[in-house]
Amino acid sequence: MTEPLDTAQLVSVALYSPKPDETVDFFYNLLGMEISHREGQSVYMRAYEDFYQYTLKITERDLPGMEEVTWRARSPEALERMAATLQANGYSVGWTETDYAHGRAFKFRSPDGHCMKILWELDYFIAPEELRAKLRNRPSRRPLRGVPVRRIDHVNLMVSDVPKHRDFMRDNLGFKVREEKIGDGGLLVGSWMSVSALAHEIALMRDAMGVGNRFHHVAYWYGVPQHLLDIADICSERDIIIEAGPAKHGTTQAYFMYVFEPGGNRIELFGDTGYLIFDPDWQCVTWDVANEIDLAKSSIWFGGGLPKSFYRYGTPAVPEAELASFFK
Amino acid sequence: MTEPLDTAQLVSVALYSPKPDETVDFFYNLLGMEISHREGQSVYMRAYEDFYQYTLKITERDLPGMEEVTWRARSPEALERMAATLQANGYSVGWTETDYAHGRAFKFRSPDGHCMKILWELDYFIAPEELRAKLRNRPSRRPLRGVPVRRIDHVNLMVSDVPKHRDFMRDNLGFKVREEKIGDGGLLVGSWMSVSALAHEIALMRDAMGVGNRFHHVAYWYGVPQHLLDIADICSERDIIIEAGPAKHGTTQAYFMYVFEPGGNRIELFGDTGYLIFDPDWQCVTWDVANEIDLAKSSIWFGGGLPKSFYRYGTPAVPEAELASFFK
Amino acid sequence: MTEPLDTAQLVSVALYSPKPDETVDFFYNLLGMEISHREGQSVYMRAYEDFYQYTLKITERDLPGMEEVTWRARSPEALERMAATLQANGYSVGWTETDYAHGRAFKFRSPDGHCMKILWELDYFIAPEELRAKLRNRPSRRPLRGVPVRRIDHVNLMVSDVPKHRDFMRDNLGFKVREEKIGDGGLLVGSWMSVSALAHEIALMRDAMGVGNRFHHVAYWYGVPQHLLDIADICSERDIIIEAGPAKHGTTQAYFMYVFEPGGNRIELFGDTGYLIFDPDWQCVTWDVANEIDLAKSSIWFGGGLPKSFYRYGTPAVPEAELASFFK
Amino acid sequence: MTEPLDTAQLVSVALYSPKPDETVDFFYNLLGMEISHREGQSVYMRAYEDFYQYTLKITERDLPGMEEVTWRARSPEALERMAATLQANGYSVGWTETDYAHGRAFKFRSPDGHCMKILWELDYFIAPEELRAKLRNRPSRRPLRGVPVRRIDHVNLMVSDVPKHRDFMRDNLGFKVREEKIGDGGLLVGSWMSVSALAHEIALMRDAMGVGNRFHHVAYWYGVPQHLLDIADICSERDIIIEAGPAKHGTTQAYFMYVFEPGGNRIELFGDTGYLIFDPDWQCVTWDVANEIDLAKSSIWFGGGLPKSFYRYGTPAVPEAELASFFK
Repeated sequence: MTEPLDTAQLVSVALYSPKPDETVDFFYNLLGMEISHREGQSVYMRAYEDFYQYTLKITERDLPGMEEVTWRARSPEALERMAATLQANGYSVGWTETDYAHGRAFKFRSPDGHCMKILWELDYFIAPEELRAKLRNRPSRRPLRGVPVRRIDHVNLMVSDVPKHRDFMRDNLGFKVREEKIGDGGLLVGSWMSVSALAHEIALMRDAMGVGNRFHHVAYWYGVPQHLLDIADICSERDIIIEAGPAKHGTTQAYFMYVFEPGGNRIELFGDTGYLIFDPDWQCVTWDVANEIDLAKSSIWFGGGLPKSFYRYGTPAVPEAELASFFK
Repeated sequence: MTEPLDTAQLVSVALYSPKPDETVDFFYNLLGMEISHREGQSVYMRAYEDFYQYTLKITERDLPGMEEVTWRARSPEALERMAATLQANGYSVGWTETDYAHGRAFKFRSPDGHCMKILWELDYFIAPEELRAKLRNRPSRRPLRGVPVRRIDHVNLMVSDVPKHRDFMRDNLGFKVREEKIGDGGLLVGSWMSVSALAHEIALMRDAMGVGNRFHHVAYWYGVPQHLLDIADICSERDIIIEAGPAKHGTTQAYFMYVFEPGGNRIELFGDTGYLIFDPDWQCVTWDVANEIDLAKSSIWFGGGLPKSFYRYGTPAVPEAELASFFK
Repeated sequence: MTEPLDTAQLVSVALYSPKPDETVDFFYNLLGMEISHREGQSVYMRAYEDFYQYTLKITERDLPGMEEVTWRARSPEALERMAATLQANGYSVGWTETDYAHGRAFKFRSPDGHCMKILWELDYFIAPEELRAKLRNRPSRRPLRGVPVRRIDHVNLMVSDVPKHRDFMRDNLGFKVREEKIGDGGLLVGSWMSVSALAHEIALMRDAMGVGNRFHHVAYWYGVPQHLLDIADICSERDIIIEAGPAKHGTTQAYFMYVFEPGGNRIELFGDTGYLIFDPDWQCVTWDVANEIDLAKSSIWFGGGLPKSFYRYGTPAVPEAELASFFK
Repeated sequence: MTEPLDTAQLVSVALYSPKPDETVDFFYNLLGMEISHREGQSVYMRAYEDFYQYTLKITERDLPGMEEVTWRARSPEALERMAATLQANGYSVGWTETDYAHGRAFKFRSPDGHCMKILWELDYFIAPEELRAKLRNRPSRRPLRGVPVRRIDHVNLMVSDVPKHRDFMRDNLGFKVREEKIGDGGLLVGSWMSVSALAHEIALMRDAMGVGNRFHHVAYWYGVPQHLLDIADICSERDIIIEAGPAKHGTTQAYFMYVFEPGGNRIELFGDTGYLIFDPDWQCVTWDVANEIDLAKSSIWFGGGLPKSFYRYGTPAVPEAELASFFK
């Protein structure tokens, strides 16, 4: 009850791709996302029910990975308050005003070094005539391409130390801890945190390769279980590697599928809503691998299991755990 | 941005039924709800993913209708703040501490007279051995009866004056206005309001019979579109009147179905999540019947239309608009 | 048990359209069908799981309607046998060998005059490299356009006299009567007939305008209920008139939706499989409107009802019942 | 085109169970099947859209396994014809007239010894008042228990020699070969055969333990993909072992899940219709493991893979491959 409730939502994730054309083609033609803007080596995209100008930025680089994650504050005052806290705690990178479609923003780094920023002002997507929806609560009409995702949902980061990063998100940005998973020897191996009714806008996973400061995945939301079967069918036809799923996590109750976009970043497709949290006094749900059922059921409630790559591969990859070493 | 954000969520709805056994049987066997408690003429029930001791109270009475709706405050302080505001604005009924499974609560009435209360303390449901779930984030295991609903979603009240009740919910309880529908002559005929990412925890509908202070429906959530087809199949087999749907509203984008429980109250079954609102600066979406598309699409985006009963029948019924006059 | 089992399946339906470009665009971009061939004023199309070269032929003409329906015999001998029977019964038009992708075929007319043909030899679709599927039992890969239908399912014809046409299909082509609906005064108003496990490859409906020799609809199959919600969402956005559904018929148990393609022909989209008939001694299921439940439930088991247009509008339209008189 | 088309459909499967009460409870409460009859150590059950008196017989015995599979002939004449053929080919066990709800039947054994019978006359299920459906094409109303299966679909037998058993089914009973899978060294490891539009009413799988004459599974059909997710959720809660799925086979395109009923027999739950075959001149689809894509995609098109138990465990089990050796 003491969280300042300062962060409102996940705004966008910026990724690097060594194959930007193929990456953009994947999001455009298979996931039905729209291209909002192109600038330099970057393409800005959004799902058809994303309200802001973009939620995904793809930039060409030699290696895949995450450039930045952007959060929105709950108010202008909350933005100032969080900037001051981050600065006081030594996480400051500084203010910026020059990012495309984003207003004045405070940039900072996680303890591991993941780049983040928080802002209040940003551009809403205004649909041109040909994309205008008849549903007044839909920012652009449903596309005819692929199996279109509806909105950005959450981001998952691989970290060297879960408790440290959980405390960082909680104490500086007002995130609440919703679920946690304890591994052998009492080690905290995962933490799911949110600022809204979603069970998580961010998950922090222990990097099994011990590296940290890596990107695990960004999730786009369907909200309809059948759509995972549809996009799985398409991915199987078109050489998109499905790492795991469609299957259901115990943790967060997500009906999920993980694929790799052609540039090598892991993307989660989210087939239902899982469960939502409205309780203002929520007590963190803890899964303990010492408990046999928890061990088996937290990762996979039903459907095939999670392969080793899930715990070892992140972007950028480490030499001992390249994508090609898991999938031919 | 000026809402105090004081209300956290919808806790429960208490209904009257002239046929309490049939009513409880409907919720128990068709909607798969659990019975938490019986006391006097009342039965307390919950869906299998409702976290609190109950979300539905059924009490015998000669006529159907709503006894009370209960909200939870975001904190003990928020409860005191709202109680003070309601009292200052003349809506006070007073404090109570004797309701089953609910702690100290402040009772009040809407301008029309709908009974409500707000509280902080309440009992969580603790599953007995035979109902315990293996999913640690699920308060009791999925039942084997009917097509089980997952949780309470929202309540809809028929009011004599929509703007007055909207202002009441906003100014006293911190609700935000998410969508509104304007009818002929600029009359506000509906307002959808929420305190969370849901598009509404409460909807206020103009009572076409001009009465007000009536109950329109309570909605239970499936989150899976197919489940509406399943429960519709069952309702058709078992003489439960389906008033409308399965179909999709434009407003809130809900994939819905409306049925009447045997006691005569309207129940909505909610087949998906609609869309969620995370934007802290959300601007109310307004549908205007002067706009031809809005007129057609706001009520029904696709699927059969809404019959006259939808606007005229509420509980308790008025003599000119009894249920039997709409459905033989 | 005396049916000769001579007809094996529905092969294709040929339609006229006054707006061929828009019609083809509808099937190509919204229903995800492929274009197999263009010749003169005609375009030949197929769904991605149709095994033959085409299942739909669109030809430009001033008025919408059906040019022809093509059936496949169960063997070369069965073809000869049926041709002889049709000829003996006076329904012969004669043999043809010049139709695109179809081999030697016997042409004939229904009592009302609907054009049909039956054949044994025809061209299978051989996917070019870019359409080749990795699923060896799928003739071409799942398209990325719209919500792609999987295969042709059945055809529905409006007739002046149901018993006469039912007997015609049974006695000349070996169709079995699966379900029938009796209207006021014992009049047979509909007959559903098949030669396979499907509940119908052809339905015969009484033409409420008394005209007969008209086309009611052709159905394409999804097999997945969710896909009807998806295509309904798209149709609502894109000015495709939805006449009825998504909803469920009692007759055949089909989860259906009816739309009008831009040329004015009615198209059914079939969201599940209904039920299948394997019983070799099937007794026709009869629905009787004198029975109150049958009356209500045969047309609509759940979901909104069927509008008057459903019984009065066919193609070509009659002046008193143009599409525009039902839908603005 | 030379098959006599003599067999019409799968009627029923009789299984042994060492835990008959738990087995019946599984089919009754989780799969929503009805109990038609009890006699001696046997319980007769059916799904709510099975038209005959029963489709599953459970009999107590020390070890799980299959007692018998029953087929229905296409006509009384076809029955005599097949009996004569089987007798001439030396597969005769002889005629019987005493089986519950089944008329005069010809019993025989497969080359491995699997017991089968074929009949024409049998009892249809006549619903008592409390089970009567309002849908005239539904033999009993949809139950309120578990996630009710709709009808029996197919049976899968483990055989010592696939080609020999395939020829047996084709030459004696008129089955058509729909799909086949060739393993290392050109060995035929599986054959899918049918007599209707279904891709298979019987599958023959090479017994990897080299035993043969064993039961692999019987499949009950949902026809709706979501229902697999529903029953998987329930199985996970209630200690029913899920061997594989929900996932999609390449072969037959089935969206499947395999579970073990408490007596140890494998049961498949079939979540969609796969694809249907109407072509009277169908050419067998062959999957070849020498082809890398075929190898990967025939068993699992998407979703987790098939564990070793799938190829090694059948009922009765062999000592080296007991269920407990695969699943704790």
